Amino acid sequence: MKIGILGYGNLGRGVEAAVKQSGDAALAAVYTRRDPAALTIRTEGVPVKSAAELEKGSEDLDVLILCGGSATDLPEMTPKYAGLYNVIDSFDTHARIPEHFANVDAAAKKAGKVGIISCGWDPGMFSLNRLYAKAILPEGQDYTFWGRGVSQGHSDAVRRISGVKDCRQYTIPVEESVEKVRRGENPELTVRQKHTRECFVVLEDGADPAKVEEEIKTMPNYFSDYDTTVHFISEEEMKRDHSGLPHGGSVIYTGTTGEGSRHVVEYSLKLDSNPEFTGAVLLAFARAALRLNQEGASGARTVFDIAPAYLSHLSGEELRAHYL
Amino acid sequence: MKIGILGYGNLGRGVEAAVKQSGDAALAAVYTRRDPAALTIRTEGVPVKSAAELEKGSEDLDVLILCGGSATDLPEMTPKYAGLYNVIDSFDTHARIPEHFANVDAAAKKAGKVGIISCGWDPGMFSLNRLYAKAILPEGQDYTFWGRGVSQGHSDAVRRISGVKDCRQYTIPVEESVEKVRRGENPELTVRQKHTRECFVVLEDGADPAKVEEEIKTMPNYFSDYDTTVHFISEEEMKRDHSGLPHGGSVIYTGTTGEGSRHVVEYSLKLDSNPEFTGAVLLAFARAALRLNQEGASGARTVFDIAPAYLSHLSGEELRAHYL
Repeated sequence: MKIGILGYGNLGRGVEAAVKQSGDAALAAVYTRRDPAALTIRTEGVPVKSAAELEKGSEDLDVLILCGGSATDLPEMTPKYAGLYNVIDSFDTHARIPEHFANVDAAAKKAGKVGIISCGWDPGMFSLNRLYAKAILPEGQDYTFWGRGVSQGHSDAVRRISGVKDCRQYTIPVEESVEKVRRGENPELTVRQKHTRECFVVLEDGADPAKVEEEIKTMPNYFSDYDTTVHFISEEEMKRDHSGLPHGGSVIYTGTTGEGSRHVVEYSLKLDSNPEFTGAVLLAFARAALRLNQEGASGARTVFDIAPAYLSHLSGEELRAHYL
Repeated sequence: MKIGILGYGNLGRGVEAAVKQSGDAALAAVYTRRDPAALTIRTEGVPVKSAAELEKGSEDLDVLILCGGSATDLPEMTPKYAGLYNVIDSFDTHARIPEHFANVDAAAKKAGKVGIISCGWDPGMFSLNRLYAKAILPEGQDYTFWGRGVSQGHSDAVRRISGVKDCRQYTIPVEESVEKVRRGENPELTVRQKHTRECFVVLEDGADPAKVEEEIKTMPNYFSDYDTTVHFISEEEMKRDHSGLPHGGSVIYTGTTGEGSRHVVEYSLKLDSNPEFTGAVLLAFARAALRLNQEGASGARTVFDIAPAYLSHLSGEELRAHYL
């Protein structure tokens, strides 16, 4: 399986690491919109090319994995490249998924290619677990908790505050609420009752910590609805203690059957590296995209549409013998 | 979706309860190999029929859910009825799955029907989680813990001991081992280190408790490899404290990516009623069997072969908008 990666940020490097571990995939090239000569990748002997090379549709790729951002990159990129290659993305702007799906579907169908959108863990593995649980236990409710983990969007928002040199923001589930859900109490939870936020901030010389803290805590959408803690640290501490991108969380579904039997289904992730795990999910679904396309399928898909066996390089016989 | 249930034990009643909760299924009939006149079911207005009625293939059913035992019933039943109807079973004799799959596949293909085998939670939802995790993180290891829950096979084994009137056997995961796995230590665990067994036993009048306890604890395969605790209780206590069939467990997968980033994926179930949850899983996959067959598919399938969207009565648009 010849894999192309477009975009070499954290996620692109995560996909690269996953390709290295797989028995059946090889990295064909990394594509960048910047100057290819300025980019060194971790896999030896693999070319870095300009994204412009992709436009002719002539690159020798089985699947192109799109590692751009959901805000502006993927809404353009995924439909465009789905018209040329089998593609996968991790589009995560929930409200715009129907529109994105329609755009990718039209382009991929026209080209006879498969495009799988919104892969990763949320959307992705968490979505699958919400769906499986709801399909099995229609009378029930799902709860999703994120963290403890680094939210890059929130870290970026704090970095934009004047006087802030660097920030790492952790999203933390409120353990008391998680336990209530696990006990099947079906609580109504406000935004504040579900998660707290913790910021580690490096200040610019001369910045006023009280002012920065106030600005963080009152920032609408990002922080004002949460209990937020702010810690000021040195650049050395940031580098030493906060260089990773851990994340995780839980989907907890509680449902009832019969005369009030209660069932709790929980799927949880504890990830040392959010981008490496997400990259590994993308690669597994790339396998499915190729296989579907080889069977003659075309158009857009999501994780909901993929039979789990398609994620594995093992045969049906092997899966039934060892995993069932 | 017109559902038939063959076999009205705990699992058959679990499927019946699931049908009652579903928005899109109706119970057409319950079939029994005993005298239909002697059986009263919980759903009013639904006929109880002899299993012999099924043999003509003329019953008006979309899917027949087979609620027999794996030891002797299902190896005969599932291929037989897959030649007449779309069928689902919960066949759980792992070693015989390949043979069972082949038999059902041949019969179902010949008849143009779909047969989904080995549905439930293990095999079933646990299998899916082993597969998803392994496909995403090829360098890793899965652990399955069962319990705390009633093992019907072990309860039956104790009931066959002379002097035992009744028994309920609980399988209990060793919490220390579960925690080691959760911490990503990848321990090598013996049978004894994974689970303990706890038996609640009602004795016949005059039976010797010491002798019964000894016989339980030394029983090969069932108990001799485990640390087992035996409690003698009264019939009233049995009825009051042990009338349910709770179960559950966890699939924990630990894998690494990149330069040693560690990821822990855990899927866990806490079920008040094992047969009601299993019945609910069977009904969700019955929906998939019907839909696959309506699309022209035939032959045997397992949970690995079913796109998750097929378990839901919601449309692709609704799923993408609300569950992704």
